Amino acid sequence: MTIFGGVSVGYMGKILRVNLSDKSIKIEDLDENLAKNFIGGRGLGVKVIYDEVPPGTHPLSEENKIVVATGPLTGTKAVESGRYCTVTKSPLTGTMHDSHSGGTFGFWLKRSGFDAIIIEGKSDTPVYLLTDNGKAEIKDAGHLWGKTVFEASDALEAEYKPCGIACIGPAGEKLSKIGCIVNEKWRAAGRGGHGAVLGSKKLKAIVSRGDQKPEIKNAAKFDEAVKEARSIISENPVTGQALPDYGTAVLVNILNELGAYPTRNFQTGVFEGAEPTSGEAIAEKILVEKKGCWGCEIQCGRWSKVKNIEAEGPEYETTWSFGADCGVDDLEAIFMSHHLCNEYGLDAIEMGTTIATAMELYQRGYLPEEIKWGDAEAIKDLVEKTGTREGIGDWLAEGSYRLAERFGAPHLFMGVKKQALPAYDPRGVKGHALNYATSNRGGCHLRAYLIAPEVLSLPELIDRFATEGKAQWVIIFQDLFAAVDSAVICKFTTFAIGAPQIADMLAGATGWDITAEDVMKIGERIYTLERAFNAREGFSRKDDYLPKRFLEEPMPEGPSKGHVVPLDEMLDDYYELRGWVDGVPTPEKLKELGL
Amino acid sequence: MTIFGGVSVGYMGKILRVNLSDKSIKIEDLDENLAKNFIGGRGLGVKVIYDEVPPGTHPLSEENKIVVATGPLTGTKAVESGRYCTVTKSPLTGTMHDSHSGGTFGFWLKRSGFDAIIIEGKSDTPVYLLTDNGKAEIKDAGHLWGKTVFEASDALEAEYKPCGIACIGPAGEKLSKIGCIVNEKWRAAGRGGHGAVLGSKKLKAIVSRGDQKPEIKNAAKFDEAVKEARSIISENPVTGQALPDYGTAVLVNILNELGAYPTRNFQTGVFEGAEPTSGEAIAEKILVEKKGCWGCEIQCGRWSKVKNIEAEGPEYETTWSFGADCGVDDLEAIFMSHHLCNEYGLDAIEMGTTIATAMELYQRGYLPEEIKWGDAEAIKDLVEKTGTREGIGDWLAEGSYRLAERFGAPHLFMGVKKQALPAYDPRGVKGHALNYATSNRGGCHLRAYLIAPEVLSLPELIDRFATEGKAQWVIIFQDLFAAVDSAVICKFTTFAIGAPQIADMLAGATGWDITAEDVMKIGERIYTLERAFNAREGFSRKDDYLPKRFLEEPMPEGPSKGHVVPLDEMLDDYYELRGWVDGVPTPEKLKELGL
Repeated sequence: MTIFGGVSVGYMGKILRVNLSDKSIKIEDLDENLAKNFIGGRGLGVKVIYDEVPPGTHPLSEENKIVVATGPLTGTKAVESGRYCTVTKSPLTGTMHDSHSGGTFGFWLKRSGFDAIIIEGKSDTPVYLLTDNGKAEIKDAGHLWGKTVFEASDALEAEYKPCGIACIGPAGEKLSKIGCIVNEKWRAAGRGGHGAVLGSKKLKAIVSRGDQKPEIKNAAKFDEAVKEARSIISENPVTGQALPDYGTAVLVNILNELGAYPTRNFQTGVFEGAEPTSGEAIAEKILVEKKGCWGCEIQCGRWSKVKNIEAEGPEYETTWSFGADCGVDDLEAIFMSHHLCNEYGLDAIEMGTTIATAMELYQRGYLPEEIKWGDAEAIKDLVEKTGTREGIGDWLAEGSYRLAERFGAPHLFMGVKKQALPAYDPRGVKGHALNYATSNRGGCHLRAYLIAPEVLSLPELIDRFATEGKAQWVIIFQDLFAAVDSAVICKFTTFAIGAPQIADMLAGATGWDITAEDVMKIGERIYTLERAFNAREGFSRKDDYLPKRFLEEPMPEGPSKGHVVPLDEMLDDYYELRGWVDGVPTPEKLKELGL
Repeated sequence: MTIFGGVSVGYMGKILRVNLSDKSIKIEDLDENLAKNFIGGRGLGVKVIYDEVPPGTHPLSEENKIVVATGPLTGTKAVESGRYCTVTKSPLTGTMHDSHSGGTFGFWLKRSGFDAIIIEGKSDTPVYLLTDNGKAEIKDAGHLWGKTVFEASDALEAEYKPCGIACIGPAGEKLSKIGCIVNEKWRAAGRGGHGAVLGSKKLKAIVSRGDQKPEIKNAAKFDEAVKEARSIISENPVTGQALPDYGTAVLVNILNELGAYPTRNFQTGVFEGAEPTSGEAIAEKILVEKKGCWGCEIQCGRWSKVKNIEAEGPEYETTWSFGADCGVDDLEAIFMSHHLCNEYGLDAIEMGTTIATAMELYQRGYLPEEIKWGDAEAIKDLVEKTGTREGIGDWLAEGSYRLAERFGAPHLFMGVKKQALPAYDPRGVKGHALNYATSNRGGCHLRAYLIAPEVLSLPELIDRFATEGKAQWVIIFQDLFAAVDSAVICKFTTFAIGAPQIADMLAGATGWDITAEDVMKIGERIYTLERAFNAREGFSRKDDYLPKRFLEEPMPEGPSKGHVVPLDEMLDDYYELRGWVDGVPTPEKLKELGL
């Protein structure tokens, strides 16, 4: 069920600036020169946060800002363009941090007349923000504070429908560093604790509605570009078949068969319970129907039913984080854990991996609480405790790194820059390992997705265990993805299309003369500016690390057996190709990119 | 009551290296060239930690080390030489960190035949270390784990008396970042969470005994130098009269009268309850007798009695942290809070200031728990909860910074580099403010003590509100104190004596040709190496900050009314004089110091 489709909305040309301290609201013109250099979405947000958030700002302080942004392709008929992103200094990582979500909210924000919202300051009392046909209003949210995502969404929808709603749950309100922003109840800008940033500002929700539609600048060119992209995507085996048929969890069996499916907090890469928790099992056992975001034909989303609960999900990452990573092979239990995360507004990757860390902490005698591998009932209880910050949940709410550190075993944190790794064991995919290490926002599969060439043969198959040449692959993916996140469209399109098609769609929508090379250069500019922000905060090569487990403990079994990650050699290559020294961009590189 | 005195023990020439992972024990010769460059104590520890703890090591991991060190003056008849220090990478601050304590343990460690102990690795089960007349043994501490400092000390003393005992309490065992190491029950290497480092290694205690006495190399010169120093100290108004008469808390009324006595988490500098909680009030109401460390004539220690409890203290800092900083004017309650810190093994500065932060968090609506200013009963309860990490105590145990961060108000943390400031409001003493900011171990009055010239006219009175020339004062104090901490003698001696007298005592004890200039150069070398360690961990100018309150909120009342700290201008001067760029030593400066 595609939710909407077909309406063309490019740039609105308007940025909404909302200060929650003095309750001021300003509407600023989008600077076209800035847009040409950063496109929109992630790029726009990164530029604003770099320029306006001073070094050393605490992520949960009044001085931090958060940008909620769409791009020129958002809500157009361009492929998979129903998304939005939020950019802020993350309370989880302390880095520049962008988080993305699908659904319909991006479409509605654009329709309400704004390309982006810059949220500043901090309210003393709970509020929500309404953007409505070119106007905005800060409204009292006293009645919504303390409510779950579902309760708050239902209440706001009843008042404003049709509209888009992005809100936080109790986790964000309670400043959980793994609290996220959820839109349409089941879609989340999940990672990095952006929900806590809204919570610290006492902003419960953003409601957007309207019917504003700017023109597409070169409609003929745009239509042709979109048509070509759609055709390529529908013919691609991943976007045209695997993802629609089995959802993202189609990867479960694939990664497990390569021995790179992280199991029990990455102690091994082979999970005995993969099959019953795979995308195929979801399709067979609990799937009601496929579901897509606004304007999306891939339809990787799942609408599932377990007992009397119908909900979206689970995705590959949650299937893993609450499954293999915690030693759970019960699909219904995984579905419920995921569902609870949406209710409380918790990042389902970080929640599952944090519980997995707790389980290994218990296994190795660091944690007094008995939390055993595979105990699905305990997991449900722990998610609830995390949402309300009760007992041990008060520490789980801080994420895996801080939990492991609290109990004196930071080496059991499986992540980078305090953000947990997702569902690919780096020992089995060496290029992906380098991407993990050099990610600007911490452990992440969405800065670059080397799984495409290393596993899925897209655009071609490369040796997953080799290290040579991987730095160049990682850089290309990182730069391309930065541009894609700024367009804003879904990264899954890049299984099929690349910079040329994206450039054509952007050229059509904006009227600019923009080439594939420009797209890649813009991506590099954004990635480098993020890196410069992090460097300003003290990050350097020392932070581009992987947990020792991956460097020193060979994979114990399976098809990746014996492998570790020779990180340093790849890192040297990477920095040289990037024009960085010890992880920090040189002044020459910044100048070359006009930064 | 001086506990011991008169025995001359200079260098033993032996370093004990204990690895708790493989239970190996090695005895290494002290490298005299290293000793000439770093003296001993803090300098020796800093050198070992810099060389042996790799960048990025987690403070609570197996890879961190902790050095327990004496110096060439420890346990000699040199002035105030009963001390020892511990040096490690701090779990509280992440910096190089030295912590110091008086009493008799330093004397006993020396007597047991070792100048220092390097503790490495991590035991699986609780152990304690016995050093005894040139030998060492790792022994089971299963029966001691979970015991308070007093219980553990009594049990070990019963077995080994006469001996020195340094141990951790439940706080250190439970990895509290404000857990300290306590010797002789009432003396603590208090700051920076060194107790948690021992706790992470499952090392409950170190017991030292023996009767080994190396020769003083030039006894005539040494005797003369000591005699001169003692004479100067006894004639000085602070060391000869104020400290013996009223203890360190003689400062309460002095600082309060200058409007620089931090009150209610530094919201003001004037405390209405100063007089009843002053050193004079202690002398009048609860003092039983004065007390000194090994070989000390100043006798600034207090032996006090409240109801049926006799104990050491309170000192100036605890009188303040549990008094003015928490809005408490009840001396007996302060005594009890301090006493509880010793039982649980908690840093009494960080404990009091963390509770003060909790009180302001409540005052300003960040903390749901009702914790009211001046509620002495609540404070006692909170200290106990912190010791056992129950309820909110689980967060208090992380120290003021992490508490404030957890509740979304890091600006209410009154400290530097995650370590809380002590009892001098920086707005009223600008040089001391610069010292706070540039301290290598975070908020601290013991890197440099500008209170001496800015308040006590020692060696001369300088304008406490002026900023010009303060950088040079701070540098001289920082370098001198680094040498004093390496000698190892008490910093209070420097109210009276300086580098010339320290050089003479060192020359006599070691036989070296060492001058006052050498002493200052060694101090600079140590301070700079600490800084280089921090830089390697990512620290720079951005970390040499003060909380915004001191930069932007003028002191609201009293004799320091209207003042803020113009930090940046002093910082520029300081770096220029140091030969550092943005807080980081240049390669030229490192080379000049032979680093």
